[in-house]
Amino acid sequence: MAPSTESVVHVNFSNPRSFANKFRSHLKETFFPDDPFRQFRNEPPLRRTKKALQYFVPIFEWLPKYTFSMFKYDVLAGITIASLAIPQGISYAKLAEIPPIIGLYSSFVPPLVYAVFGSSRSMAVGTVAAVSLLIASTIGDVVSPTDDPTLFLHLVFTATFITGIFQTALGLLRLGILVDFLSHSTITGFMGGTATIICLQQLKGFLGLSHFTTKTDVVSVVRAIFSHRNEWRWESAVMGVCFLLFLLFTVQLRKRLPRLFWVSAVAPIVTVLIGCIIAYFLRGHDAIQTVGHLKKGLNPLSIGYLNFNPKYLTAVVKAGIITAILGLAEGIAIGRSFAIMKNEQTDGNKEMIAFGLMNIVGSFTSCYLTTGPFSKSAVNFNAGCRSAMSNVVMAFCMMLTLLFLAPVFSYTPLVALSAIITSAMLGLIKYDEAYHLFKVDKFDFCICMAAFLGVTFVTMDVGLMLSVGLSIVRALLYVARPATVKLGNIPNSTLYRDVEQYPAATSFPGVLVLQLGSPIHFANSTYIRERILRWINEEEDVSSPKGTNVEHVLLDLGGVTSIDMTGIETLVEVLRNMQAKGIKMGLVNPRTEVLEKLMVAKFIDIIGQEAIFLSIDEAIRASQFSLNVWTQKDGVDKDHVPDTKGLL
Amino acid sequence: MAPSTESVVHVNFSNPRSFANKFRSHLKETFFPDDPFRQFRNEPPLRRTKKALQYFVPIFEWLPKYTFSMFKYDVLAGITIASLAIPQGISYAKLAEIPPIIGLYSSFVPPLVYAVFGSSRSMAVGTVAAVSLLIASTIGDVVSPTDDPTLFLHLVFTATFITGIFQTALGLLRLGILVDFLSHSTITGFMGGTATIICLQQLKGFLGLSHFTTKTDVVSVVRAIFSHRNEWRWESAVMGVCFLLFLLFTVQLRKRLPRLFWVSAVAPIVTVLIGCIIAYFLRGHDAIQTVGHLKKGLNPLSIGYLNFNPKYLTAVVKAGIITAILGLAEGIAIGRSFAIMKNEQTDGNKEMIAFGLMNIVGSFTSCYLTTGPFSKSAVNFNAGCRSAMSNVVMAFCMMLTLLFLAPVFSYTPLVALSAIITSAMLGLIKYDEAYHLFKVDKFDFCICMAAFLGVTFVTMDVGLMLSVGLSIVRALLYVARPATVKLGNIPNSTLYRDVEQYPAATSFPGVLVLQLGSPIHFANSTYIRERILRWINEEEDVSSPKGTNVEHVLLDLGGVTSIDMTGIETLVEVLRNMQAKGIKMGLVNPRTEVLEKLMVAKFIDIIGQEAIFLSIDEAIRASQFSLNVWTQKDGVDKDHVPDTKGLL
Repeated sequence: MAPSTESVVHVNFSNPRSFANKFRSHLKETFFPDDPFRQFRNEPPLRRTKKALQYFVPIFEWLPKYTFSMFKYDVLAGITIASLAIPQGISYAKLAEIPPIIGLYSSFVPPLVYAVFGSSRSMAVGTVAAVSLLIASTIGDVVSPTDDPTLFLHLVFTATFITGIFQTALGLLRLGILVDFLSHSTITGFMGGTATIICLQQLKGFLGLSHFTTKTDVVSVVRAIFSHRNEWRWESAVMGVCFLLFLLFTVQLRKRLPRLFWVSAVAPIVTVLIGCIIAYFLRGHDAIQTVGHLKKGLNPLSIGYLNFNPKYLTAVVKAGIITAILGLAEGIAIGRSFAIMKNEQTDGNKEMIAFGLMNIVGSFTSCYLTTGPFSKSAVNFNAGCRSAMSNVVMAFCMMLTLLFLAPVFSYTPLVALSAIITSAMLGLIKYDEAYHLFKVDKFDFCICMAAFLGVTFVTMDVGLMLSVGLSIVRALLYVARPATVKLGNIPNSTLYRDVEQYPAATSFPGVLVLQLGSPIHFANSTYIRERILRWINEEEDVSSPKGTNVEHVLLDLGGVTSIDMTGIETLVEVLRNMQAKGIKMGLVNPRTEVLEKLMVAKFIDIIGQEAIFLSIDEAIRASQFSLNVWTQKDGVDKDHVPDTKGLL
Repeated sequence: MAPSTESVVHVNFSNPRSFANKFRSHLKETFFPDDPFRQFRNEPPLRRTKKALQYFVPIFEWLPKYTFSMFKYDVLAGITIASLAIPQGISYAKLAEIPPIIGLYSSFVPPLVYAVFGSSRSMAVGTVAAVSLLIASTIGDVVSPTDDPTLFLHLVFTATFITGIFQTALGLLRLGILVDFLSHSTITGFMGGTATIICLQQLKGFLGLSHFTTKTDVVSVVRAIFSHRNEWRWESAVMGVCFLLFLLFTVQLRKRLPRLFWVSAVAPIVTVLIGCIIAYFLRGHDAIQTVGHLKKGLNPLSIGYLNFNPKYLTAVVKAGIITAILGLAEGIAIGRSFAIMKNEQTDGNKEMIAFGLMNIVGSFTSCYLTTGPFSKSAVNFNAGCRSAMSNVVMAFCMMLTLLFLAPVFSYTPLVALSAIITSAMLGLIKYDEAYHLFKVDKFDFCICMAAFLGVTFVTMDVGLMLSVGLSIVRALLYVARPATVKLGNIPNSTLYRDVEQYPAATSFPGVLVLQLGSPIHFANSTYIRERILRWINEEEDVSSPKGTNVEHVLLDLGGVTSIDMTGIETLVEVLRNMQAKGIKMGLVNPRTEVLEKLMVAKFIDIIGQEAIFLSIDEAIRASQFSLNVWTQKDGVDKDHVPDTKGLL
């Protein structure tokens, strides 16, 4: 049997919650949506301290349970990512216009810090291309990396320090919400645009140019390439194309045979080593430019070099903050996707603190900005890492490299680095994803293209801000125009659904049921008022030939989660407007927060408690009492008039 | 009998609408929510042209139906508002630091223009205090009104011209949506703050000071008053206090006896006339400062004075745009409130065009910014005006005044103007409204106080922007944290309601029903994911002692009006996460737009059409098939297990 629709429960008009209660619940939803302290509430003090320590410093959680069999996997994964870290470190440092050795330093200290504070098990720490280029172009605006390389480097350390402070602060203040405003579409467009301009810039390396532009946009780069045609070198170009083909082949191999992922993982270091050998034999000959001298030894301290000169501070802070957000967006997104694969939970705000500490310590020890890059983390995951120990192993490998092998890499040809960067970047231009966006959501596609075109034709920060601005406009437009639909009754049920979506749904003559979109806020109050009046007018236009007028308007507030003062006044206006037309208004199923505000604002006193209903069906039954047109209508399914006994 | 819950209708998976269709419907909702052309669709061409002309130029609509009996009322109302327009015009022109005669000019031409194009029947056109002060302070930043009064005046005309162009453009582009972002709370705080600083500024007039500050903030004004103590004059102060008490008495009288509204309406002109007589007898004596020479004659042309010198253009454009928006906000809000009282419909975008044309023509004929001020329109309404003809009568009275009576008003004492301004402004500081906001909505109160404190302690534009910024943050926070609630079954019904709001609602063991807030967008996708997982965790924490685990999660999407690409990917993530835990996910009642996107994005293919339900009840019945825990639970109301025949 089907349950009856006569409910014994009525709209709950109990006292509104106190402000403190509501405020606490809002704060919790805004800043602690994942309720991180749930696990050690209700525990004895000592255990709680231990759990809290484990929560804030995850190494205390996983190290005691660590076993030798896990270590074996981590050693393998660590060596694999170290072999990737060396060429990537050197390449991206060149992209950031800082000495290549800094790239190697950046794969030594930060992974150790992350191993202590980070909570992801699959993340591999390292430098990233987009951020490296962004640092170079932002700080390059105030200091030239070629004219004053020392000052430039010190400003890069300072920007890294600011990044670290900013990330830690965001994490401590639980402002992960800021990262949420970088939508998937923005990131797709931004990465695609950045990859495009980075690839174009690599033509400098491929062609062996010594003069080039510091600007990043397509037009400047293409002009720079063609204005120095006399510098083009075919030896360099041939070598670059061979390397690139080799790297692209290994990438294709990985796609076809996922088991052979390690081939593409070690391909870059193989490229570098082959390049070194060729360059070694061609030394003295200037056809192939090389990286140049790399000093043996571990990271020197750089804490004394941090430069807070007000002359450069604006640019440095700007670089620090933008790269901080980009770094977090990449790192958190990647941590999250691996957590889903392994069915773990990540805490974005805690990860931010780990990234922040890593960058602060990094800026003290001659490292520049690091995060959790996708390529390296994927290799780490595929190599079977079991814990953050793989980062420790990678750091150990880097230490050995720095202590003994650094001079070997001085022979690395720049063209090999260009090939490595290009092959990595080509994978980041996601045509298919942009096409998917175009098909599913045109506005998302515009947001994506704004980032892409902004980055490629103006500058990286303009592209990013344009796209984020457009996303915010979209969010505001959403709030300004919440969808309102007319509901009808699904035959033989108590369900009321959108009449456009379900053409079978029928409406009762004289009764107009509208489902309001959420929220009812200042930004949409005029719209909601006019939309409701338009529904009434349209309804009367259609039904007037039959002589039926709208006598009841029921507003379904079930989906409305929030209302503000202007919204309440709009409802008052609509009510007055309807009263003037002789129409009765009813509200259906207001949610706690909305009902509370309506009560405090005395709206319930104006409209009367009897006009608030728990369900549409109840409201319709109540409306039948006072309806004049009811009996005039012929085609109505008489059986379906809801029964009215036991009501009121 | 109660209708059965077995619906014959299923979720409508018909083909998604075409992009052009969706786009057209979005455009219409965004820019034409009131569907202004509805009235002359489906009409023969000639009639349509006539109707369109009447729509765009409302005088063609009301003038042919105009009768002599209406005219009698309009003459009375017109004379009453003219008696108010003279003192207000002179006062507000002093506030704007321009010659007082400009204030009188501004009540002659603009009302005539409004009578032709305006659609409100109760609006009385005139200058307003807040906007006058704002113009003075913005243009005063680049040109001093005392050192170069001619240039200052020309820039004020230019700002008025820009205001007109901007308002017309907003109206033509149907961008009334911009005015929506000035919330009621912002306006309350802004008006209160402006009224406070204007009242303080009137102390200059009360005390007869000749030196004063051009800044508007409380601190500067108070300092200016006390640093010129030697200039204080008791004669002026005594006269001012007497006038003020008289004016406040008439205001109180109107509140007690609404029939006597005309006493407070003519009180300002009486004050001015008494002031003139006193000043006439005290002439030569410098205790009482007067307005000074007022030239006879109608508005001279000022079109040649518009000054687009790039040196001042930034300030002029800024003044023009901010005052345009403020003027619109006041005018449209007032037009709307009278329309509600008279049960008419107003079209905000059309009103904008009328205001814009009025200001463009005004700027050509020596007028400064005019709009529909509240005080004057209320007097017009109370005096029984029947149409925009009352504005024509007022303009005619102003013409007579300008032609013959202007010199009389040269004797107007400044202190009388200060008293008039103060008594008008005191009514705009709405303590009770601020207190109401505090009680109903703390965030709205903060928005209001941001405007109030910003205006009183910094500058008017900072206060306005601070408050609008805070409103936008609120809108974004709303989008970032949509409320999610757990639903339970209301006993003996098919209704599912928030379990916190209705503690009587019971949940089925093993099934978690969540109602998602709207929208599912990039800005809240992380939150929604974490909140859903937290619901599952909390549910399992509670039920684990009994050995029941969550096996089904039903997401009620009935209230979700919009989803974007990032949102869809979040749903995919949540689905994968649940699959990893062995939980089945179902979607209930997705609305057209959401369902269309889910289909295009292939999400429906991933989750399967059988996991989409039309109602929660249907979904619960389907879930009972595969539930393990069902039979273990003892306390469950066996009768209420929804029956499952005819399903699937």
